[in-house]
Amino acid sequence: MEMGVKDLIIVGAGPAGLTASIYASRYKIEHQVIGLLPGGAMTEAYKICNFPSEVSISGWELAQKIENNARQLGGEIVAGEVLKISGHYPNFQVDLADGHKLASKTILLASGAKRRHLGLPNEDKFLGKGLAYCATCDGPFFKDKIVGVVGGGNCAATAVIFLSTIAAQVLWFYLGSEPNAVEPGWLEEINKQGNIKLMARSEIKALLGDNHLSGVTIKRENKTENINLEGLFVEIGSDPNSSLLKQLGGTVNEGGYIVVDGGQATTIPGIWAAGDVTTSSNGLRQIITACSEGAIAADSIFKFLQRQV
Amino acid sequence: MEMGVKDLIIVGAGPAGLTASIYASRYKIEHQVIGLLPGGAMTEAYKICNFPSEVSISGWELAQKIENNARQLGGEIVAGEVLKISGHYPNFQVDLADGHKLASKTILLASGAKRRHLGLPNEDKFLGKGLAYCATCDGPFFKDKIVGVVGGGNCAATAVIFLSTIAAQVLWFYLGSEPNAVEPGWLEEINKQGNIKLMARSEIKALLGDNHLSGVTIKRENKTENINLEGLFVEIGSDPNSSLLKQLGGTVNEGGYIVVDGGQATTIPGIWAAGDVTTSSNGLRQIITACSEGAIAADSIFKFLQRQV
Repeated sequence: MEMGVKDLIIVGAGPAGLTASIYASRYKIEHQVIGLLPGGAMTEAYKICNFPSEVSISGWELAQKIENNARQLGGEIVAGEVLKISGHYPNFQVDLADGHKLASKTILLASGAKRRHLGLPNEDKFLGKGLAYCATCDGPFFKDKIVGVVGGGNCAATAVIFLSTIAAQVLWFYLGSEPNAVEPGWLEEINKQGNIKLMARSEIKALLGDNHLSGVTIKRENKTENINLEGLFVEIGSDPNSSLLKQLGGTVNEGGYIVVDGGQATTIPGIWAAGDVTTSSNGLRQIITACSEGAIAADSIFKFLQRQV
Repeated sequence: MEMGVKDLIIVGAGPAGLTASIYASRYKIEHQVIGLLPGGAMTEAYKICNFPSEVSISGWELAQKIENNARQLGGEIVAGEVLKISGHYPNFQVDLADGHKLASKTILLASGAKRRHLGLPNEDKFLGKGLAYCATCDGPFFKDKIVGVVGGGNCAATAVIFLSTIAAQVLWFYLGSEPNAVEPGWLEEINKQGNIKLMARSEIKALLGDNHLSGVTIKRENKTENINLEGLFVEIGSDPNSSLLKQLGGTVNEGGYIVVDGGQATTIPGIWAAGDVTTSSNGLRQIITACSEGAIAADSIFKFLQRQV
């Protein structure tokens, strides 16, 4: 790993970070991308139908296409986790989990958001033993079994559809009387399937089982009942990975998302942010909006560095 | 052509309009896209290397991929030109050049920007007779000839590179002592070519020739001189196609770009705008930013229409 002072370190290798790298390479900004997994959370998507240039593609495939482009243009993408950022422009220090310390003039935070947990006892114990946060990754293990999905949003709806093609039955648990803000397209598709059961007004109160999840206790219209199932997929939203900026005193909103201006600059000089971790794109957090924010951030950083020379 | 009241009419079939159609279809918004050419100005790009998921693709090919996706999802894309929009939400009337009148609850302006002309005598006369505004479209006609490119920006630089692979020699005319805001990547590529001549501080004063362009008069460091060439490509920027909004009293900035909020709404209720015609994306007008703005606009329109029901 190069130990000199970079022009830019990009934290996160999802669509925002990789597109920023593509633009940074075109602009000849010497940079490095640090991320746990090229593609980031996108790789968990079973099927993507709204990326403009692809009729239908898996998140994994799309991630590989974008990563391939970033690498071809000269982007250095390094596996790693950033624990801490310290210092000021033009002398930021980036501490990695493996003990390496990197130096950079500027930083782009494209660190995404992480999935929310239920907060129930045994949740960690059952992880990978019936409980999962990624239907695409773990769904295939539940062939012909009964599974549940928790959550009332779009991500839950897509998980329900995907799992209905694998599992014997899918129980969809959500709090309201209707799913919340789900695309009509998904609901139409859900209504077509015969093996999906809608469990409205249901709250998961407990996870049951010895070594492996075997059921859940739900509260529904003031009654509690136990329901047998062999898998439970938790799809109840995400929290932004904004702690690196918060440690530096940068501004986040009430949900913890990094507040940025029109050029993706944070409130800390020399630090920009792009993708799911930010307040940009009117809160529409999609692959296409993350890519666009990454491009805008790289353009802003290029102009910033040129002005400083 | 369907004559009922649509939920949405999208004016323009470039990356912003087509991506808006993709999202509108997912959201089951009944809509129609009206545009002269699917893909819009993107189709003129010889080679695109910074669309995240494509290492290298022609603008024409990328346009076809996006159009194909929009059509597969049910988007109705109609060839036509919008002359006038009148009325108010939810009763807009859209008048087409072919005499058709359409009715829609909401409007999305994704009408792009058009290329700037030199404003010289004979400019129209020589159009297609040596003078061109699209190197990709017309470049191949100038094989082994001497051509000029006017303009100091990125678009001019990419035209210069493209033409250098076709023409005997390319003269690059620009006003400053250096090209202006050109990506270092392009400049490096230009310096590699042996048949490109940089003509700094050069202003085109006249177009010469009888039936066909045969040369230009330039002013350079207070001297005028005539230069023989057989083709001239004008790459001096663009003006936004915002007149449809201006006629309705909507707000544009000093450059004529449509002022939008974070959700791509214009100052006229029921009208949104996306892509090159707007002030969005920090002024970075790229295919990826246009796509993102189209997605954000469709999402805003979906939420708006849901609130009205």
